[in-house]
Amino acid sequence: MTLTLQDLGKVVLDTEYAVRGPIVLRARELELEGREIIYCNIGNPQALGQKPLTYLRQLLALCEYPALMEHAAAHFPAEVLETARGILKASPHGLGAYSESKGIKVVREAVAEFIRERDGIPADAESIYLTDGASKGVQTVLRMVVAEPTDGVLIPIPQYPLYSASITLLGAQQLGYYLDEERSFGLSLGQLEDTVAKAKAAGIRPRALCVINPGNPTGAVLDEANIRMVVDFAQRHSLTILADEVYQENVYRAEDRFVSFAKVMHAMGVTDVTLFSFHSCSKGYLGECGHRGGYLEVRNLPADVEAQLLKLQSVSLCSNLPGQVAVHAMVRPPRSGTPSGELFAKERSAILDSLKERALLLAAGLNRVEGIRCNAVAGAMYAFPEIKLPPGKTDAEYCMALLLETGICVVPGSGFGQLPGTAHFRTTILPPTAKLEQMVERLARFHAAYR
Amino acid sequence: MTLTLQDLGKVVLDTEYAVRGPIVLRARELELEGREIIYCNIGNPQALGQKPLTYLRQLLALCEYPALMEHAAAHFPAEVLETARGILKASPHGLGAYSESKGIKVVREAVAEFIRERDGIPADAESIYLTDGASKGVQTVLRMVVAEPTDGVLIPIPQYPLYSASITLLGAQQLGYYLDEERSFGLSLGQLEDTVAKAKAAGIRPRALCVINPGNPTGAVLDEANIRMVVDFAQRHSLTILADEVYQENVYRAEDRFVSFAKVMHAMGVTDVTLFSFHSCSKGYLGECGHRGGYLEVRNLPADVEAQLLKLQSVSLCSNLPGQVAVHAMVRPPRSGTPSGELFAKERSAILDSLKERALLLAAGLNRVEGIRCNAVAGAMYAFPEIKLPPGKTDAEYCMALLLETGICVVPGSGFGQLPGTAHFRTTILPPTAKLEQMVERLARFHAAYR
Repeated sequence: MTLTLQDLGKVVLDTEYAVRGPIVLRARELELEGREIIYCNIGNPQALGQKPLTYLRQLLALCEYPALMEHAAAHFPAEVLETARGILKASPHGLGAYSESKGIKVVREAVAEFIRERDGIPADAESIYLTDGASKGVQTVLRMVVAEPTDGVLIPIPQYPLYSASITLLGAQQLGYYLDEERSFGLSLGQLEDTVAKAKAAGIRPRALCVINPGNPTGAVLDEANIRMVVDFAQRHSLTILADEVYQENVYRAEDRFVSFAKVMHAMGVTDVTLFSFHSCSKGYLGECGHRGGYLEVRNLPADVEAQLLKLQSVSLCSNLPGQVAVHAMVRPPRSGTPSGELFAKERSAILDSLKERALLLAAGLNRVEGIRCNAVAGAMYAFPEIKLPPGKTDAEYCMALLLETGICVVPGSGFGQLPGTAHFRTTILPPTAKLEQMVERLARFHAAYR
Repeated sequence: MTLTLQDLGKVVLDTEYAVRGPIVLRARELELEGREIIYCNIGNPQALGQKPLTYLRQLLALCEYPALMEHAAAHFPAEVLETARGILKASPHGLGAYSESKGIKVVREAVAEFIRERDGIPADAESIYLTDGASKGVQTVLRMVVAEPTDGVLIPIPQYPLYSASITLLGAQQLGYYLDEERSFGLSLGQLEDTVAKAKAAGIRPRALCVINPGNPTGAVLDEANIRMVVDFAQRHSLTILADEVYQENVYRAEDRFVSFAKVMHAMGVTDVTLFSFHSCSKGYLGECGHRGGYLEVRNLPADVEAQLLKLQSVSLCSNLPGQVAVHAMVRPPRSGTPSGELFAKERSAILDSLKERALLLAAGLNRVEGIRCNAVAGAMYAFPEIKLPPGKTDAEYCMALLLETGICVVPGSGFGQLPGTAHFRTTILPPTAKLEQMVERLARFHAAYR
């Protein structure tokens, strides 16, 4: 055979992506055999029953098939018709043509306005790139920031395995910094300094620092002081920042508030640290994972480097156009006071209220189990509880046993990284409330009996 | 600044993608200044006025907003309603959830059936991966087939620069084999053998062979004998084949016929050469570039290597779902005899007839210009004429001057590769007929006066 396992590169073989790893493949087999599986392995809200927002889908239907605006206009609210007409006027080739490599301008302008309103800072449509979900944006930026096999990227431990997988594929070095589980999984300056010092001692040049806020898999929401500390650290060590902010709408407690890296850097007057921030339609209250819509914004990037970013983006021509329109719906919801606006607000609140309820319920339920300890799920869509295991057992074995006995599909902590000697798993908060309650109950029974 | 041009890797800096390179950027600037630009740089049919097929857009509108099936069913033909219901029944989370990494099964099954009917050979839905256009599929496969910096991939010269760009980014070796311009840009065994021999002498291990059929930028359609020769060659040298077959519907002459690599390999009984073939909704008669829908099919791939492919595909979760539905429309058009089927056939014929007319018109027009020589545009969407230049002038200078003087935006042959000492450009056949005639006229005047 011309292509065998022996032919594959080490970086390909070494790549791991636990979120769709062996436990999930086994779950799929069991499902095909007729078992009921509760998929808590991935933040995929609509697969677990969340409904799409009416406005977004109406807008996409009109952009896909503009003839509806003439012969079926009565089936659509005025606000949606107006927005669809605006998009198609500004981008007359509609969804069928490649757009500019950065994405259609009317959407990038809406993103810039969204950032200006969210943060009260300037934002430029030319610094925004529409991407196929946040994942593709992260992969392109990582391709830019590492040049040599001895270049390193700081990533949180635990982290979302997109980061480790992409860095492995690039043949660069992962520099894991431990999040402080005792302090709600915040970033610790000591840990960051320690990670950089060790890397340098090992001949690795730290190039960039990834932060996920709100945290995946941790559920943590960083406060402004923590972000200031990180920006200051990045500046002192000349690190580019990748701020994964896809869960910015998923903040559940009154005492927390999402603060963007862009806003903090602006307030600090920092202009020599390059910042890439990422957002996505897949999370928040939209949960439109299947549309693969997202954007990245760059700040403090020299024009000649931005030209290189544009070139890399061009090789894949452009992100998908329905995803670009979904981004428009995300950053510019219908005006309140219109029927569309009222419905949108109602649907959004229902989803966010329910997510909040489930975040509380799950953490509380897990903490009632002897041998499980879970931080508050302050944000994002996950809990990452620590579990006490019988001697000699691994978290991967635990999660496989959990799947086989209960049908609950979660991902072992080893897939995200954890302090040596500890064990965790990641579960989403996404099953509907009744199912989530059932799940906690089954999990508690399983855990008590696990030997 | 934390990220400067000096920080970027050599592979990033070395990557070139002429189809959206400096000439196209200049064209965009001129357009913003109010100049009329005829964009012939990229195969983007709907940007040049081609209309989307009604069936495909109706199907997508229904899948985006299924409520239309209840309250606005009267606006849709029965056939479209039935197909939309079938897709949503088989994939109940609709377009909003991540699908399996390979893509939703009902679409993969439709693709397998399409291949069985097209080629009269077996095909398996589990060997099909739905991708964001063909580009992403090609990039993933190239990531698999090269392991070391000394691994090489044979690519045609001239080629579509996705291949050179992706191989450069992977830090692997491009092994260009010249297509035989005198023989309608077919593949020549001598050239292939020569390329492999030179690579081996230079310490490079040839791993794979890319073929684009119908050809981009050449417009060539390979016959079965040529494909047999290539398969035999790949088998003798243990090369994996990447068959870029995105233009399979774009065949314009009665004497030509698209023949797939899968069909030829099956007929030859070859089971030890791994084949990846690629298809896309962006070309053919659909021209749905903005939907980024495509698939790759694998044959003769060991199960353990296929598991690695699935893993790589999983890191980006899945291709965009509207694009997956567009693939369904491509491989399973509405049945003839239904109103939808009749309209589909009529729209398809109109587009293909017009493309055929423009392919003939363009080649004939170019050949009337003294100093320009153009092969027949037998397939795909491009002409790649050879041009005689004044001493000391490059094709890049020629194309920039052409843009500045006439507003016609084409890509220099150097962006695709060409025999040393020759000069070419690539132009699409896509401007509407009247504009194409105008373009040929302007080009002829420009060429005659070019010094």
